[in-house]
Amino acid sequence: MQVRGAPLIGAAAAYGVALAVQHDPSDTGLAAACATLGATRPTAVNLHWALQRMREALAPLPPADRADAAWTAAEAIADADVACNASIGQHGLALLRRLPPRGSRLNLLTHCNAGWLATVDGGTALAPIYAAHDAGIDLHVWVDETRPRNQGAALTAWELGQHGVPHTIIADNAGGHLMQRGEVDAVIVGADRITAHGDVANKIGTYLKALAAHDNGVPMWVAAPRSTIDCGLAESSGIPIEARDPDELHWIDGVDAQGTPCRARLTPAGSAGHNPAFDVTPARLISALITEVGVAEASRAGIAGLFASDHLHPTPTSTAP
Amino acid sequence: MQVRGAPLIGAAAAYGVALAVQHDPSDTGLAAACATLGATRPTAVNLHWALQRMREALAPLPPADRADAAWTAAEAIADADVACNASIGQHGLALLRRLPPRGSRLNLLTHCNAGWLATVDGGTALAPIYAAHDAGIDLHVWVDETRPRNQGAALTAWELGQHGVPHTIIADNAGGHLMQRGEVDAVIVGADRITAHGDVANKIGTYLKALAAHDNGVPMWVAAPRSTIDCGLAESSGIPIEARDPDELHWIDGVDAQGTPCRARLTPAGSAGHNPAFDVTPARLISALITEVGVAEASRAGIAGLFASDHLHPTPTSTAP
Repeated sequence: MQVRGAPLIGAAAAYGVALAVQHDPSDTGLAAACATLGATRPTAVNLHWALQRMREALAPLPPADRADAAWTAAEAIADADVACNASIGQHGLALLRRLPPRGSRLNLLTHCNAGWLATVDGGTALAPIYAAHDAGIDLHVWVDETRPRNQGAALTAWELGQHGVPHTIIADNAGGHLMQRGEVDAVIVGADRITAHGDVANKIGTYLKALAAHDNGVPMWVAAPRSTIDCGLAESSGIPIEARDPDELHWIDGVDAQGTPCRARLTPAGSAGHNPAFDVTPARLISALITEVGVAEASRAGIAGLFASDHLHPTPTSTAP
Repeated sequence: MQVRGAPLIGAAAAYGVALAVQHDPSDTGLAAACATLGATRPTAVNLHWALQRMREALAPLPPADRADAAWTAAEAIADADVACNASIGQHGLALLRRLPPRGSRLNLLTHCNAGWLATVDGGTALAPIYAAHDAGIDLHVWVDETRPRNQGAALTAWELGQHGVPHTIIADNAGGHLMQRGEVDAVIVGADRITAHGDVANKIGTYLKALAAHDNGVPMWVAAPRSTIDCGLAESSGIPIEARDPDELHWIDGVDAQGTPCRARLTPAGSAGHNPAFDVTPARLISALITEVGVAEASRAGIAGLFASDHLHPTPTSTAP
């Protein structure tokens, strides 16, 4: 968790391979680096996609040429992420422009952090929000706190504040109520892995917001690069869900009244905790996927279209067990 | 928030009237006490129900007789709450005995705290859980943290621990995922107000759990005394939803590593918060209402039956605006 956010995890892993092959550019060294980095986070597929790209770029080369080539390949992945997110922003902006606002301004809701803190730059779920704000659209963002690690309350709120985007933090429990009251025009979230059928693994709690969006006729959008799509994976049960340390529930980090970092225990000493980090939202609850090559239905046909429309990038191969 | 939990708020208000009429037993004093206490919490109806009971008991009496009569009436409300919850426990136990367990033990999920800390004794949502545990049924409770005030993580977990009931704290975000995985056999929550059609106002986030329960075929039960039913209120839009201080989102109370109480700030200084304390779950998402006189469908007919079955207690009158 020193690095978080599926796209940033991918780019960081690419640079990790580059660092590793400086020391050991042999086939063994390359394989060991990819194996070590690949074991760090189970749910996001971008990690495996980036490692695969690095392997494909480096394995055919003589070991002596791999160090320089690795930096170039990692830089290409990082640069592509920035361009990709800018494109997601524009495709999302087009969707937002077509959205009939329920009130005087557009109210969007996001869960977790899929902004520039989670990518090389620009963000995925937040990219359309930044693009719309920069285009002068009057919008406001409901920021889910996103327990237990509070990526919304701590990171997304801070990011939006830095960019001057009006926003309000809410408890994860509040989003459904706001949708019932007509105070949410659309939900936009990122993704850690998308199956070939359009099911979406994302931060725990996304599924609950998708249910509420569906129940209230609110569009539920998932913004992610195509590298998040695991085309070989049909069944979402094949996505490993990371179970994180229950101490993330028991203890919380914050600052005291003097601004000094502090930790507070929230639970009785004898109580256990369970901390799954992701859940899977079925495709039937998702209104649209927003990718760098366009907007698609969350379905096998919609996803196939995303790859048919652009042959410059190879289709990622499955990493399913 | 020195007193919380709808039934306990009702009983505490009754004793509040008793205290007030010691000092001023006049019609004006009685009316002022009821008005002051009635303005403390907008959502729960038990408060108004208890004040109405006190008014009915005291208003016909000469002022000089009111002080003694008030203690008797308040005590009757408190005693009735204990008996009522014991009865809710037995009716809920009967439901639990009919539930086919998905695994070796029964897994229940609860939101917020509707245990003996929220009532005079026994609890509402937790009453069937205690009854089942005491009857030797092998059960385990998923305890929703219940942000922002953490009544689940702090109170329900502690209560269950004191009673020896196996339990695990989860983030509010996790319940839907657990239901998708078949790890929840039933959801049991309390209520702050129930409309004549069976819509249920309860702690913010209850609606999201009800959506997930419905989506996964998990029974969603609401356990509450009949005094929670606002028979004159047809539309849930008539239920005022308390908006609490956003500082409940910005700051959190806990203990530090030495066990000393501490407060931590969780959000950036420039970010606003919005903190609705309750939401309304539509009757269509509720599998059953568990009351002291039996189990009913969450519908106008089901609720009418609850009052037809027992004429010893008067039908509460509406307090809708």
